[in-house]
Amino acid sequence: MSTLTELTNHQFRLAARPKGMPQHTDWEYRAEPVGEPGEGQFLVEVSHLSLDPAMRGWMNEGKSYIRPVRIGEVMRAGAIGKVIASRHQDFAVGEHVSGMFGVQEYALSDGRGVQRVDTGSAPPESYLGALGMTGMTAYFGLFDIGRPEPGQTVVVSGAAGAVGSVVGQLAKLKDCRVIGIAGGAEKCRLLVDELGFDAAIDYKSDDVKQELRTHAPDGVDVYFDNVGGDILDTVLSRLALGARVVLCGAISQYNNTDEVKGPANYLSLLVNRASMTGMVVFDYADRYGEAAAELAGWLAEGRLHAREHVVEGGIDAFPETLLDLFSGANVGKLVLKIRD
Amino acid sequence: MSTLTELTNHQFRLAARPKGMPQHTDWEYRAEPVGEPGEGQFLVEVSHLSLDPAMRGWMNEGKSYIRPVRIGEVMRAGAIGKVIASRHQDFAVGEHVSGMFGVQEYALSDGRGVQRVDTGSAPPESYLGALGMTGMTAYFGLFDIGRPEPGQTVVVSGAAGAVGSVVGQLAKLKDCRVIGIAGGAEKCRLLVDELGFDAAIDYKSDDVKQELRTHAPDGVDVYFDNVGGDILDTVLSRLALGARVVLCGAISQYNNTDEVKGPANYLSLLVNRASMTGMVVFDYADRYGEAAAELAGWLAEGRLHAREHVVEGGIDAFPETLLDLFSGANVGKLVLKIRD
Repeated sequence: MSTLTELTNHQFRLAARPKGMPQHTDWEYRAEPVGEPGEGQFLVEVSHLSLDPAMRGWMNEGKSYIRPVRIGEVMRAGAIGKVIASRHQDFAVGEHVSGMFGVQEYALSDGRGVQRVDTGSAPPESYLGALGMTGMTAYFGLFDIGRPEPGQTVVVSGAAGAVGSVVGQLAKLKDCRVIGIAGGAEKCRLLVDELGFDAAIDYKSDDVKQELRTHAPDGVDVYFDNVGGDILDTVLSRLALGARVVLCGAISQYNNTDEVKGPANYLSLLVNRASMTGMVVFDYADRYGEAAAELAGWLAEGRLHAREHVVEGGIDAFPETLLDLFSGANVGKLVLKIRD
Repeated sequence: MSTLTELTNHQFRLAARPKGMPQHTDWEYRAEPVGEPGEGQFLVEVSHLSLDPAMRGWMNEGKSYIRPVRIGEVMRAGAIGKVIASRHQDFAVGEHVSGMFGVQEYALSDGRGVQRVDTGSAPPESYLGALGMTGMTAYFGLFDIGRPEPGQTVVVSGAAGAVGSVVGQLAKLKDCRVIGIAGGAEKCRLLVDELGFDAAIDYKSDDVKQELRTHAPDGVDVYFDNVGGDILDTVLSRLALGARVVLCGAISQYNNTDEVKGPANYLSLLVNRASMTGMVVFDYADRYGEAAAELAGWLAEGRLHAREHVVEGGIDAFPETLLDLFSGANVGKLVLKIRD
């Protein structure tokens, strides 16, 4: 290991609030000396960055479930890394940790929100995926808000994405009929052939409403929405009595420069005595342990397949890799690996 | 009493499915002889008709929470009347009853869905209002779906209407801060001065968003929506964390000839971990007794004021009086009295 003072910390700071899709000019790429940990701090050498649709929201001004990233601030991101210097009593040099370390190569931490991870039992990227916030989001969104019963029909959009691919598998573990909506034949094939979904609808080439009639003839009991827009509207038109719609995200709307399109079929909630409920994973922090243990068990038994899409690019690749989320390039959890 | 064969039954049957606001040509006015009750039937002389926004929905084709009224069928309506002939063991001549007797002067019934009413303890129109479906809708929608806690802020739209005026008063009984949204200064005055609302917003002349900032500075915990459209969208932008939106109706949309406008601010549900849930009063049929007893108690104690807007017009006045619902002419429950 080099001495800390010889290390350079490359990082991306937010330079401007994007209009629509983030541009290169929205970022400031900076090289800084690495800071020495103060008393109660430790230094993390970041190896993997979590790339999430939610990051686009954090770049916007205005009230949300978490404060916006400030202009000039290191972009917020979940990450995995290794402790390389420590003056913190709970974290020792050599330990692997997960936390909101940001889009940078090194991060100082006081340990708040940081979890130790066991890279012996699962690869680091899994702790950003099925064993990380992604898995937590799927677990609590589906089980606490969606509340599927065996035999019910669960539909998930963004089904080949990080959260969606876990949601569908969890619903299968609960003996539901599971239909995924994804973009492209290859993703749809994967959902059915590799992840055990009962059916998949390719929104780019299929008539989603007609396919829902075919695959969910009795209506949709649980809809886990990651995309918003027209797909949300279409699924609303096919709800079963007492259906639960879980609002987890709205990736189709995040880069909109027009007004968000509201779901014109929302009165289907009334007709069907259905509910639509928003969820933010951070609210379940005191139950992460419960979910992580159960998810790790299913992974170990081979009943849950963690899909990660790891881009080996170095930190320079961050701006382009983030855009992959919105072009639908990734299958499963998108992770940027910035060091071995 | 005349013999039955001498009686003529005037009635309105649905002649066409309206486009937008119902027209005279959507109705067939017919005079028929009155039928003799068969075994297990009784004949009701109808005195009061319930006029409800939901009736507009029943005139449309397509799947809803109840089957559409068929072309040629007597228009569905709740009503109060008196039994004038009976071959039914549970209903005797002279008893006052409430049921879905339709827009006609006389109705044959087999007793299904029919309740006896005590016109000695409350006037007949109350059994269409606060002690009828209106009161049940307010009671279960607010308490079961809205679940307000003391001190929370409850907003209700269509606040001077049949359901809204009861919802606001029930929320006050639960020690909530209650804000009504209604059209016109006179309605707003009545909400505050006579029904005890804490504040009222006149959507015709006020800036609803700004008024919500003023009167609900900490956000809206429960929103009981009777109107949909722009008002729903505006209230969504002011939700508190964990808010509950009760979808009871969408009167602003019922006569639309354009596509329904979806709530563009629906992602506020996500940010605020809020829910939006549809309710249909018929689902609570097995608990009507519980609600009716409680509502009757509050009425008797003077803690709940039943507002009815009784039009004394005879059955001929039905088509015009129905339109009063959509022009906002009524305050409280709109009832058409067709006989003393």
